[in-house]
Amino acid sequence: VRLVPQGANSGLVGASVPDGTGTVGVLSTERLTSGLAIDAAGHTAVVPAGVRLSALEDALAPHGLTFPIDLGADPTIGGMAATNTGGSRVLAYGDVRRHVLGVEVVLPDANATVLDLLTTLRKDNSRMALHQLFVGSGGSLGVITKVALDVVVRPTEQVTWWVVPSSDAVVLALLDHFERQAGSARLTAFELLSGAALAAGLSRLDATANPFAGGPLPATALLVELSGGDGTGDAFVAALEAAPDGSIADARSVPAARSWAVRHAVTEGLRARGEVVGFDVSAPRSAVLALRDDARQLVAERFPSAELCEFGHLGDGSLHLNVVLDAAGSVDVARLRAAMYALVAQHGGSFSAEHGVGPFNAAQWRATTPPAVQDLTDQLVRLFDPRGLLGHPALPYRHEGPRP
Amino acid sequence: VRLVPQGANSGLVGASVPDGTGTVGVLSTERLTSGLAIDAAGHTAVVPAGVRLSALEDALAPHGLTFPIDLGADPTIGGMAATNTGGSRVLAYGDVRRHVLGVEVVLPDANATVLDLLTTLRKDNSRMALHQLFVGSGGSLGVITKVALDVVVRPTEQVTWWVVPSSDAVVLALLDHFERQAGSARLTAFELLSGAALAAGLSRLDATANPFAGGPLPATALLVELSGGDGTGDAFVAALEAAPDGSIADARSVPAARSWAVRHAVTEGLRARGEVVGFDVSAPRSAVLALRDDARQLVAERFPSAELCEFGHLGDGSLHLNVVLDAAGSVDVARLRAAMYALVAQHGGSFSAEHGVGPFNAAQWRATTPPAVQDLTDQLVRLFDPRGLLGHPALPYRHEGPRP
Repeated sequence: VRLVPQGANSGLVGASVPDGTGTVGVLSTERLTSGLAIDAAGHTAVVPAGVRLSALEDALAPHGLTFPIDLGADPTIGGMAATNTGGSRVLAYGDVRRHVLGVEVVLPDANATVLDLLTTLRKDNSRMALHQLFVGSGGSLGVITKVALDVVVRPTEQVTWWVVPSSDAVVLALLDHFERQAGSARLTAFELLSGAALAAGLSRLDATANPFAGGPLPATALLVELSGGDGTGDAFVAALEAAPDGSIADARSVPAARSWAVRHAVTEGLRARGEVVGFDVSAPRSAVLALRDDARQLVAERFPSAELCEFGHLGDGSLHLNVVLDAAGSVDVARLRAAMYALVAQHGGSFSAEHGVGPFNAAQWRATTPPAVQDLTDQLVRLFDPRGLLGHPALPYRHEGPRP
Repeated sequence: VRLVPQGANSGLVGASVPDGTGTVGVLSTERLTSGLAIDAAGHTAVVPAGVRLSALEDALAPHGLTFPIDLGADPTIGGMAATNTGGSRVLAYGDVRRHVLGVEVVLPDANATVLDLLTTLRKDNSRMALHQLFVGSGGSLGVITKVALDVVVRPTEQVTWWVVPSSDAVVLALLDHFERQAGSARLTAFELLSGAALAAGLSRLDATANPFAGGPLPATALLVELSGGDGTGDAFVAALEAAPDGSIADARSVPAARSWAVRHAVTEGLRARGEVVGFDVSAPRSAVLALRDDARQLVAERFPSAELCEFGHLGDGSLHLNVVLDAAGSVDVARLRAAMYALVAQHGGSFSAEHGVGPFNAAQWRATTPPAVQDLTDQLVRLFDPRGLLGHPALPYRHEGPRP
């Protein structure tokens, strides 16, 4: 029996779900929850793989610390490490990889070797970065059982505004402005929501949630967050006032929790509208708005019965280009996928910004990863898992025979 | 002929220097300097391996950007990636690893395969983190030819004070205070210098460099830096005033460039005093001052003719425990090394915080790395370099026969 490691099963590419063959089992890490250890002076934590993000945050809060990965889900820390999740605050804090100081891993070799790569040292070049290989491996090299994390001081104030740019052409200038002019605070989120995404999120919440109540929803809204101490709100106002002339059409101050409720409700709102084909992509920041335009044009011209709903973490160059299919099922999903991924490649982007590689996008990995990288990945997987016991069978990493 | 890749030859563990056998050549990357590409909107740079840190900084400055790794040397970017250098601002910005988005590498296989792992995307989980394996590999897996980096907004103000703690017991509380209370700025350095380290640094500079002129040098001085925009200086004064009662015995405001000149002159000053045996170690922040005390006691009791000069990046838990030997050569260096490394291990520390693994500390790697990690490292080196062409022959990674 082959095993797929599974945390909270919140992954979005199918990597932690068995296939239908009856030969794949789930290796759940959910009971690995005891022994969470926080070093408050060192700003580090050793976290058993099955601990949920929310439980870690609850444990860190009394120390004024936070693990600053903001997601709309509540995954396990082991799953977050195996996936290298990112979320909304990557522009300020980086992805999970940047916070993983060490891991403990059980290898799928004949001895079930426990690989002790666990350290809480912030500076340690006494060995190669084997631990980093497991971060983002999608459960294919070993089972992560513990993760050592660096954590950060929890900001005492987080202030969000909904900012409507006067046009898409000024969005990058606004991003640069907030990164440079936040002054007494730090730009911790710069999210883009299209009107369709806003509408989807608001559809799951009561009427008071609408930051633009009393008027139409804007075609593009930016959820901008500054974090810091006292004075963060004033700093935000000062940054708004100093924004490039004419760049802001509207700006609404909304408490952070309410802003994020809208943002995090988008995915659920879309699902309620129909079947969703999701594209979790990224591009250089200078290309991401052009990619968005091209995606809109693509859907309008070639898949007019579908609706593109785009939103995402513009600050780090990533976008969720989600397509809601019509109920009649008239969209050729394979053609849609091929066309969208081709656009992403044209813009120098990635077909998987933060969701990882799984059965759902394995073909894309095969089609676009340089052959030398494919070969090396294949050899690494064989080295770590010589018997082929671990990971979803449809992962593209274990290739038999010559590659096409 | 075996080859050791070499950048600016500023490494401190001997990994880029051929041995004396005449069978090892230097593969210099110093001519790989053309094609530096900065994406000012994306805050990224693709840097040929032979570009020096100072040249990269010169290229970034007009864009208001910086690669925030502060070192007392001017290495090449390729060497910095191969070593995973850290420096003085790791507590705010992390080490080189955290900034490496991708690499281009030439493998030492029969085809001299060029491995294209080069991307400037900030979010990209479309493949495993093979690039991270090369960061900190010490030139043993492949030759890094290009590095894609994320870079950050250059602070417009950097303010340093020399802070003398009332006792070593309050140092961690002061660190915590500055991390939490910096308010309108960010704590970007928290360096500890012993009186001996201060004296060594000052010995290389003119009399105006002494921040404590007119009195004795303190036994412990902290070089504290806040970075931010306008108001950073005021924020520093406010943080000093709000420090825990009685924790600060003295504080002197000195322009940042002058403060860092003292800090960066320490190593040279020590070399002028005699032969130096350096220990580049780290420990959990909560243990690092106890480690320092034990090291002082060790040298005083067992090697009284030598002088311990301790300094380093307390904010990230690392210390340089440098020992100046007496001219008579009466210190048994092997005993000193063994005793010091044993102390570090007792405190849960690392024998190489930032200098990496090379001939100088290869024995320590063999003695302290878990056998399963040694075996896996060995297998990885054989996978990447099947013919044994790359890296210093005294690196401990390529083991013949069963390990002891």
